Amino acid sequence: MYRKEIKVLDCTIRDGGLINNYQFSSDFVKAVYRAACDSGVDIVELGKKLEESDHYTRDKWGPWNFCDDDDLRSVIDSYPTENPPVVAVMYDVGRVDVSKLAPADNSPVDMIRTACYVADIDKGLDLVRRTKDLGYATTLNIMAPSTAIERDLIEGLEDVNEVPELEYLYLVDSFGAFYSEQVTSYLEMYRKYAPSKPLGFHAHNNQQLAFSNTQQAIIDGVNLLDATINGIGRGPGNCNLELLLNFLKNPKFDVRPIYKAIQEVFVPLRKEIEWGFNDIYGISGYLNQHPRDAMKQRANPEIKDNCLDFYLESRRIEDAELA
Amino acid sequence: MYRKEIKVLDCTIRDGGLINNYQFSSDFVKAVYRAACDSGVDIVELGKKLEESDHYTRDKWGPWNFCDDDDLRSVIDSYPTENPPVVAVMYDVGRVDVSKLAPADNSPVDMIRTACYVADIDKGLDLVRRTKDLGYATTLNIMAPSTAIERDLIEGLEDVNEVPELEYLYLVDSFGAFYSEQVTSYLEMYRKYAPSKPLGFHAHNNQQLAFSNTQQAIIDGVNLLDATINGIGRGPGNCNLELLLNFLKNPKFDVRPIYKAIQEVFVPLRKEIEWGFNDIYGISGYLNQHPRDAMKQRANPEIKDNCLDFYLESRRIEDAELA
Repeated sequence: MYRKEIKVLDCTIRDGGLINNYQFSSDFVKAVYRAACDSGVDIVELGKKLEESDHYTRDKWGPWNFCDDDDLRSVIDSYPTENPPVVAVMYDVGRVDVSKLAPADNSPVDMIRTACYVADIDKGLDLVRRTKDLGYATTLNIMAPSTAIERDLIEGLEDVNEVPELEYLYLVDSFGAFYSEQVTSYLEMYRKYAPSKPLGFHAHNNQQLAFSNTQQAIIDGVNLLDATINGIGRGPGNCNLELLLNFLKNPKFDVRPIYKAIQEVFVPLRKEIEWGFNDIYGISGYLNQHPRDAMKQRANPEIKDNCLDFYLESRRIEDAELA
Repeated sequence: MYRKEIKVLDCTIRDGGLINNYQFSSDFVKAVYRAACDSGVDIVELGKKLEESDHYTRDKWGPWNFCDDDDLRSVIDSYPTENPPVVAVMYDVGRVDVSKLAPADNSPVDMIRTACYVADIDKGLDLVRRTKDLGYATTLNIMAPSTAIERDLIEGLEDVNEVPELEYLYLVDSFGAFYSEQVTSYLEMYRKYAPSKPLGFHAHNNQQLAFSNTQQAIIDGVNLLDATINGIGRGPGNCNLELLLNFLKNPKFDVRPIYKAIQEVFVPLRKEIEWGFNDIYGISGYLNQHPRDAMKQRANPEIKDNCLDFYLESRRIEDAELA
């Protein structure tokens, strides 16, 4: 599958940070940045750029949740290269302060991706407008569309379509609930109601389908794809960047720096934190549930592998919620 | 995806046995058989039925490589049930003795699946004829078609088409090399040259695509699907039965006994043997290679995670082979 229009976004640090409160060492982030540079990925997302507060401190929540420009510069300056990737960070609706954002010309950041739930699409679009006005490339990543009432989602997509400041609209399988046919049908919906927007796709691997669903998105014409090194990411993780680069066959990509990073810094990291498929996440994906209960179960050594208990409990909770 | 014609074959013991020399305890096999019964899967494959020899002993190679009728009966009798699954075993071309096989009426075995490489299709078909004559249900599982010269495979398929004793022809992704488009194109070839044969599909999970490729086979009309509990199987393993049953939605299936077996007997087994995706198997799948080198690397604790080294070495071997 070689299609030259396809761009790959490495969100290793941003999505991986969800499992360790963004406490990656500076050396780790530099290794990921270097791998991104050498592999030829188009965009690298180095964290979130949230607003600090008394509760929400850098010490507790990690430097890459806040992405100070100086921190980013130290990473970028650590590996000067001729064609560096676009540097992205993520905004969460309600947790950012655009007034403190420097104009893009004075910032190490090139792209700001705004994440929001369906209920907050208009707030998200407001952030998109304001970040674009400051000169940043923009995306809107609508989270958990699989749990939205379709009419609400459609209204949001119609709003999205009217915002010229938005460059990419993302379909996000937040709960890892999609099979390939859901990827196709959501993409059809996104195209129908937001026809002016090029599309991106972000998968989760609850049912071992992050990579295959990303392929389905490619087949369906999506040209901006998220992936992470070794599939790191919350819970079961994301689409594995190395698998994706192998699949894409585009000569601009080189998979070897990714395998190098895995061998040198991800294998040791696996001794500290866990990610990847197991049946607990498989169940939460199948049931289209937020992964928080699954993560809670995985964090308890005594019950972490009790998938039957988790299945029965999850189904009973569901039944109770419907009563 | 509910299609009532679909049948599921649990090959947990047969494919899982490849990683522990078929040294499953009798209790483990009974637990798997019970889960198969309770979950409603159509067929359960309890091992291979190979010929013993001085070199190839039960002690060294495990009881479930030989599947004595008495061993099978002890499993089946341990859990009497109203609608038990069809019991299958596998034949490997060149390692069996049909003359010692009892007629199906006097055997606990209902189905014999014959596995062969493309070069041995005619030998495989000879076994199929002879086992069918004894009253067994039959399949032919052509291994590693991804490495065959297409003309040889086509000739073999034409031969397959002329054997009325064969009930199912299997597309097997032995090396986990297929993307969904390969599944589709091989199935088209199998249908074109062996149009008289209903098709089965057997996946491997090298690139995290065993489940999604099985879905693709379903989309393409295949009605006999292999899967294993918790995805156990050689190297990266197989399509996870629990994911597949969730996907199929057929009311005849119940996934809970599968999760029960995972929680009670597969989680402990994981402390003894390894299966499932990692990047070493991802590379061997991507390169369409036999998993033996990957398994060798995974068996060496000092280098098991050195995926860059494995990638470079595998590519160099390839280059050398082509020179």
